[in-house]
Amino acid sequence: MAATQDTVYREAGFGNAVARGSRPAVLVVDFSYGFTDTAYPTAAEMSGPIARTRQITDLARERGYPVIYTTIAYQPGEIATLPWLKKAAGMAALLQGSRLVEIDAATGIQSSDPVITKKGASAFFGTPLAALLTSVRVDTLVITGATTSGCVRASAVDAVQSGFTVLVPEDCCADRAEAPHRANLYDINQKYGDVTTADDIIAWIEGLPA
Amino acid sequence: MAATQDTVYREAGFGNAVARGSRPAVLVVDFSYGFTDTAYPTAAEMSGPIARTRQITDLARERGYPVIYTTIAYQPGEIATLPWLKKAAGMAALLQGSRLVEIDAATGIQSSDPVITKKGASAFFGTPLAALLTSVRVDTLVITGATTSGCVRASAVDAVQSGFTVLVPEDCCADRAEAPHRANLYDINQKYGDVTTADDIIAWIEGLPA
Amino acid sequence: MAATQDTVYREAGFGNAVARGSRPAVLVVDFSYGFTDTAYPTAAEMSGPIARTRQITDLARERGYPVIYTTIAYQPGEIATLPWLKKAAGMAALLQGSRLVEIDAATGIQSSDPVITKKGASAFFGTPLAALLTSVRVDTLVITGATTSGCVRASAVDAVQSGFTVLVPEDCCADRAEAPHRANLYDINQKYGDVTTADDIIAWIEGLPA
Amino acid sequence: MAATQDTVYREAGFGNAVARGSRPAVLVVDFSYGFTDTAYPTAAEMSGPIARTRQITDLARERGYPVIYTTIAYQPGEIATLPWLKKAAGMAALLQGSRLVEIDAATGIQSSDPVITKKGASAFFGTPLAALLTSVRVDTLVITGATTSGCVRASAVDAVQSGFTVLVPEDCCADRAEAPHRANLYDINQKYGDVTTADDIIAWIEGLPA
Repeated sequence: MAATQDTVYREAGFGNAVARGSRPAVLVVDFSYGFTDTAYPTAAEMSGPIARTRQITDLARERGYPVIYTTIAYQPGEIATLPWLKKAAGMAALLQGSRLVEIDAATGIQSSDPVITKKGASAFFGTPLAALLTSVRVDTLVITGATTSGCVRASAVDAVQSGFTVLVPEDCCADRAEAPHRANLYDINQKYGDVTTADDIIAWIEGLPA
Repeated sequence: MAATQDTVYREAGFGNAVARGSRPAVLVVDFSYGFTDTAYPTAAEMSGPIARTRQITDLARERGYPVIYTTIAYQPGEIATLPWLKKAAGMAALLQGSRLVEIDAATGIQSSDPVITKKGASAFFGTPLAALLTSVRVDTLVITGATTSGCVRASAVDAVQSGFTVLVPEDCCADRAEAPHRANLYDINQKYGDVTTADDIIAWIEGLPA
Repeated sequence: MAATQDTVYREAGFGNAVARGSRPAVLVVDFSYGFTDTAYPTAAEMSGPIARTRQITDLARERGYPVIYTTIAYQPGEIATLPWLKKAAGMAALLQGSRLVEIDAATGIQSSDPVITKKGASAFFGTPLAALLTSVRVDTLVITGATTSGCVRASAVDAVQSGFTVLVPEDCCADRAEAPHRANLYDINQKYGDVTTADDIIAWIEGLPA
Repeated sequence: MAATQDTVYREAGFGNAVARGSRPAVLVVDFSYGFTDTAYPTAAEMSGPIARTRQITDLARERGYPVIYTTIAYQPGEIATLPWLKKAAGMAALLQGSRLVEIDAATGIQSSDPVITKKGASAFFGTPLAALLTSVRVDTLVITGATTSGCVRASAVDAVQSGFTVLVPEDCCADRAEAPHRANLYDINQKYGDVTTADDIIAWIEGLPA
């Protein structure tokens, strides 16, 4: 069955390797306490993907490549009206100014790293992210974070639509459940970006010309 | 396992029913020959979902609600450069002016129905769709078409991010393989819109005040 | 000459009156201290337009219509890279967290009013504003604020492009110099929205069905 | 008075020279027959700016830099609903498939040049232009076309907001009347991009490293 599915996809022209560029940025999606601290019902255990992401971001920053974080945060006046908060009502707990929307310090975030505040799944939708990446001539976006089946997937789709080459190290992505994590990595790898590993990303960044 | 997963999602606040509005539009995603005519490698058999979609669109048009179609189409000068066409190289066959980008006549499309031309997965990304829907005060978007795991999913995510309530009749959606079709309907129903049936949509539209 | 110009515009089909809707929102552009407090070189005297805007926003809020404010604010990591800050270098003083980006209390802003943070001239560009307005089914946007020739103009263009009817009360708009103020009101009135007065907006809102 | 105005702008930090990059593209706005052929009431005489633009585009194409054209075009189903067509009703004549929306052959357009279809003033709004430019790593956008006070101005604002450096050769821009042409070049030069000449752009492109 999976063999047949892969054949169908290959014949339709999906699943090709991307053409990596030479000016990467790292986008770390929603490693805020509301997603990382299991004291909150919206969170899940993700210390492993955070630690592996940090290996990439520490290196990227050292080499001068942008590291950008996202967080979901709402103002009181938005909560009653946004249709996403009807469907995904748990997200309404992510109140601007609360600890839930703060980036987890375990990520190693620095004060010079831009933080993009978003209202939905995608890091690009209704945010200045594409303009920020374009202004520094990024060509390839490494996407990590949470959750694979939600905001990582949505950000990968928008990244390639925005003109960026997409790389997703799967051991840097976290989700609440294994099946959606796997299914979305499959979709991403077939259609939006190369699914790879932290080790591969690190080796690639280390090999880029200074 | 699935029981556990559903519990985790419920506790995180996902999977709630949307609040249906009273001004629907129907968005028919990529029922162009390049996706519907199995003579093309990018296509799959989808006559059933097309027929069921047509029941909805015929009714919607009769009641005065907008019916909007999307197609993917490229100009020669775009094909070498867009990173999506590296990953999903099969899409590069969808050349502007060719039969592959024409909406399948089996959909019952009318000349007064707007056709949105897009370059990526989402019907909203880089298109005037959100503005068009806003200009006619649509509040609820019924999304059908192909493929569930690609352009339908991406359009559902952007629809709810754009401020519209989302309904996806699953028997009106087609895909190349069953597993991604199912996995993406699961994600949509948990996070972006209610997954329902053509019969339910028809009954709902028939019950709306004139 | 002006007569000739008006004739040319009329023959080209510009300058028609808009069709006002019944669900307004008020967008107050950049009445932050960086623009309103003449202690800062980026500011100008605008106490009159602030006071007249407040008459509209107090009424709108009382009637249950959304009142939304915008501010320009930058994070340290953005300032060196955004090309707008090369051309309009004075804007780089608008640092997130500083008093310059705070909405002037003289506007009468309430804690339940959404504040949109932007990086450029338009209130819509790279922000969730269009989605927020769509989610509450706004049809008509009253735009006030500063400066007429910069952020008010850019927001008016994007508002009508986004599918909203645009009204601009000129006595609620402020600028650094009279000639650009006048020239941009002319352009707005010819092409993007009706230029009117605070009194007219107040009478219109008071006359809307509850 | 003008001296005072310039002083006010300078003190506010406007009017600085941009930092030109090394990967230009040329955006030719709305040199379609509906704007260039004075048989139509929406048009004006603009043979001079077309000829000077062609000098730039011929050179850019020869050097391998992208040349992109825009046109405004509507489908029948859009005309009754878009609020811009209430205010700027003359634009409704620009029907998809008609001669009015075709790019004027005097521009020297080639079949490999992308044509962006838009519904409003800005070449970026609701179009794939930003993604197209990002996908080929453009850093500097030369904007020419018609009209200076409408679509050129709106496109310049969106270009800099999108992260591109903006250059506007004034002898390549056309308008229906002199006062708005001048006023908008003033605003552009103060706030969004450098206003320059065709000769300067040609010399700059000729001097770029191959």
